[in-house]
Amino acid sequence: MARWEPDARGRLRAAAMDLYTERGYEQTTVADIAERAGLTARTFFRHFADKREALFAGSAALQEGLTTAVAEAPDSATPMQAVAAALDAVSPMLGHDREYSRRRGAVIASTAELRERELIKMATLAAALGEALRERGVAEPEASLAAEAGIAAFRVAWEQWLSIPEDRDLGDVMRDSLSRLEALVAKR
Amino acid sequence: MARWEPDARGRLRAAAMDLYTERGYEQTTVADIAERAGLTARTFFRHFADKREALFAGSAALQEGLTTAVAEAPDSATPMQAVAAALDAVSPMLGHDREYSRRRGAVIASTAELRERELIKMATLAAALGEALRERGVAEPEASLAAEAGIAAFRVAWEQWLSIPEDRDLGDVMRDSLSRLEALVAKR
Repeated sequence: MARWEPDARGRLRAAAMDLYTERGYEQTTVADIAERAGLTARTFFRHFADKREALFAGSAALQEGLTTAVAEAPDSATPMQAVAAALDAVSPMLGHDREYSRRRGAVIASTAELRERELIKMATLAAALGEALRERGVAEPEASLAAEAGIAAFRVAWEQWLSIPEDRDLGDVMRDSLSRLEALVAKR
Repeated sequence: MARWEPDARGRLRAAAMDLYTERGYEQTTVADIAERAGLTARTFFRHFADKREALFAGSAALQEGLTTAVAEAPDSATPMQAVAAALDAVSPMLGHDREYSRRRGAVIASTAELRERELIKMATLAAALGEALRERGVAEPEASLAAEAGIAAFRVAWEQWLSIPEDRDLGDVMRDSLSRLEALVAKR
């Protein structure tokens, strides 16, 4: 029988990030992470498929947050209004720990395998967002275009939010990114 | 001494595509491809790093075409006008053989490794386009936003061009994609 391990998942994620930063991602094993967290490798594997997934644990909740917000947007919302509502909905979840996100960004940037995983994550999010728009009745190619444009604004806002010196609200940076995109595309 | 092999590169690409379609990508070896093309594996490796790269042989020329067009756009061009010029510049090269492109798309869609390679290619193109815009003096985050939006329009146009029954000009589909993106983003 498994013992009750208070916030095992959070402790494992924090231990993984500490070790990835100290030793490097490649040099860290699941056994190292479990030991640092004071847990067993078996507990690690109850929470994550492998050491890579400890960095991508939030992806499913992020996708769920985006698609639910699109589904719940008012009937009168245009495709880009629904996308903007989706970005607004996930900003608090994504933007609550900039220091963790910065360290995560540095680990991902340093490892080709993780950069690829991050690209797959973003492509998966764009596909899910497009599907959520089609379920609202948005036709193609508009659904894919709105989803891809939204994810493009998201990615750029995310990188900006991580790199600016002041601690701005992620939601503000996302809305600003969408506004700048609008201004750019209008001047064509 | 190497014999002169007329259009070895083109023959190898065609043989690779035939075999990927007939047998599947995973089941095809470099030796199979060389044999089908009537050439040696050694000749294959003079042209491509591995069997995957036989499907991505045009990436460097595509990137070069995009960035050159951005650099050569008039000084008065807005960022999105420069991006539109880049898409226009590469459309004839990309759009000259829809049947090959369709078969390539089907092979890529069927293999996770190839889908990832395609995502990396698109991310690399977006980064190069952003860099070309910064070299024109476009500031951040506008350069990244315009580049990502341009690649988003490109991807959607590409999928549409491959899937529509009639044989439309790829450049027309790309311009239409940018116009639709503009209309979408304006309604926010």
